[in-house]
Amino acid sequence: MNRIRRDVLKMFAVATGGAVLSPSFAKNIYATKEQEKIPEAPWPYKKLDPIAVAERAYPGYYKGGCAYGAFEGIIGELKKEVGYPFILIPTEMFIFGEGGVAGTSTLCGALNGAAAAMFLVTGAFEEKKRAEAFEMIRELFNWYEQEALPNYRPKNPKFEIKPSVSKSPLCHVSVSRWCKLTGFKSFSKERSERCGWLTASTAKYAVELLNKKADLAFKAVHPISAEVQSCRKCHDKGGEVENSRTTMDCSGCHFTGKTKHP
Amino acid sequence: MNRIRRDVLKMFAVATGGAVLSPSFAKNIYATKEQEKIPEAPWPYKKLDPIAVAERAYPGYYKGGCAYGAFEGIIGELKKEVGYPFILIPTEMFIFGEGGVAGTSTLCGALNGAAAAMFLVTGAFEEKKRAEAFEMIRELFNWYEQEALPNYRPKNPKFEIKPSVSKSPLCHVSVSRWCKLTGFKSFSKERSERCGWLTASTAKYAVELLNKKADLAFKAVHPISAEVQSCRKCHDKGGEVENSRTTMDCSGCHFTGKTKHP
Repeated sequence: MNRIRRDVLKMFAVATGGAVLSPSFAKNIYATKEQEKIPEAPWPYKKLDPIAVAERAYPGYYKGGCAYGAFEGIIGELKKEVGYPFILIPTEMFIFGEGGVAGTSTLCGALNGAAAAMFLVTGAFEEKKRAEAFEMIRELFNWYEQEALPNYRPKNPKFEIKPSVSKSPLCHVSVSRWCKLTGFKSFSKERSERCGWLTASTAKYAVELLNKKADLAFKAVHPISAEVQSCRKCHDKGGEVENSRTTMDCSGCHFTGKTKHP
Repeated sequence: MNRIRRDVLKMFAVATGGAVLSPSFAKNIYATKEQEKIPEAPWPYKKLDPIAVAERAYPGYYKGGCAYGAFEGIIGELKKEVGYPFILIPTEMFIFGEGGVAGTSTLCGALNGAAAAMFLVTGAFEEKKRAEAFEMIRELFNWYEQEALPNYRPKNPKFEIKPSVSKSPLCHVSVSRWCKLTGFKSFSKERSERCGWLTASTAKYAVELLNKKADLAFKAVHPISAEVQSCRKCHDKGGEVENSRTTMDCSGCHFTGKTKHP
């Protein structure tokens, strides 16, 4: 029994002259204990409005970056709609993922933040739940590579934004492709706005997947392309070479024909 | 006032016949409230033993993957050494980062998990703290690209492991380079063990950086190379082209001379 719980019980016993604790009081004490020993994942998901999540993720991007925007867009709504235990999560930790983690431009922060939130409400140490959560996260990553994004326009945008196909979940590649398509600079206000829309789009799709999963109706609809499967046949698990691992689109980096530049 | 707190106070008032609350009881009620309204980042860091962190991260890798191993290696030690508020963090959320996030092989999970933990104890919404945390995280990423890793041998390893230089923070590149150097397959037990050592090595270096920061003695010692600076001069912020962003080593993917294969 922890100190706080013991003290409260002792004081209550003194005050009541040792009367029996009511079930309601015992329940409250248990709530205190629960807050100290948090539940294990998966935490209880409640179906969310994807538009509400997108509209929370968009300003979140400007406040704390792409990973924070996506993570807080989802977990912030769960704090509002479910409360405990989501209220315990310091969502600002996910500022770390900004610009592909601290501006290093590795993994798109919107994907990073959304994936963490998705795992928290569906995944677990247990192998089956882990695999199911991973399958849903991979659907999100493949969608991000294959679709023309952003595909969600916030209600009060700063600029109008053209979509592009990233062919990669990496911030560096995703930003470069959009810049080349639109002619905007990589540190322009327009590019920031594009990433704000992208954060909203990604959080929205993540929640659409979670809602489908909650209805037991999730199915991956963005499979790995035949070209990538062909590469993986030799290089991935069980292949003749088996010297690599990834589900990323190989052509995002390889076979671009420009790699000897300049 | 929240429901639990109100109920406890009401019951206490009934039991005592409305007597004045003792300061000790009020303090306990306040502790309950604190647990519901968690503090904002940065959370209070206490210098940790890097070896203890590495030895916690290594089995963590086998339990929940690379990102969990690194995150839990650091946050788990803080749960032990500091307690609240770290006890509130569901570290198993970071299983999501396994194999470059759900096995997609994007960002190395050891870097992802370590970066999140580093931000939680040093970063904030506030611009200066955020920039300082990001600088430290970038030092970790550059170290990972440039050093021969893993450089920490767990006390009870399964195999002996040769180090390699990844030239990239990406799981896909890091794994492939190690496989090509050692001849082991990408889904072999040896490769898993290598990633276990790498998780321990990364968590250890992250904590060495945090300890230096706690002593006000942090200084980045792995700057971006002259070659990469030369690329960035045109392509990054303020450059003539400015169509890209990253601090990654360009040669990790570009200029490899093999990109037209097969």
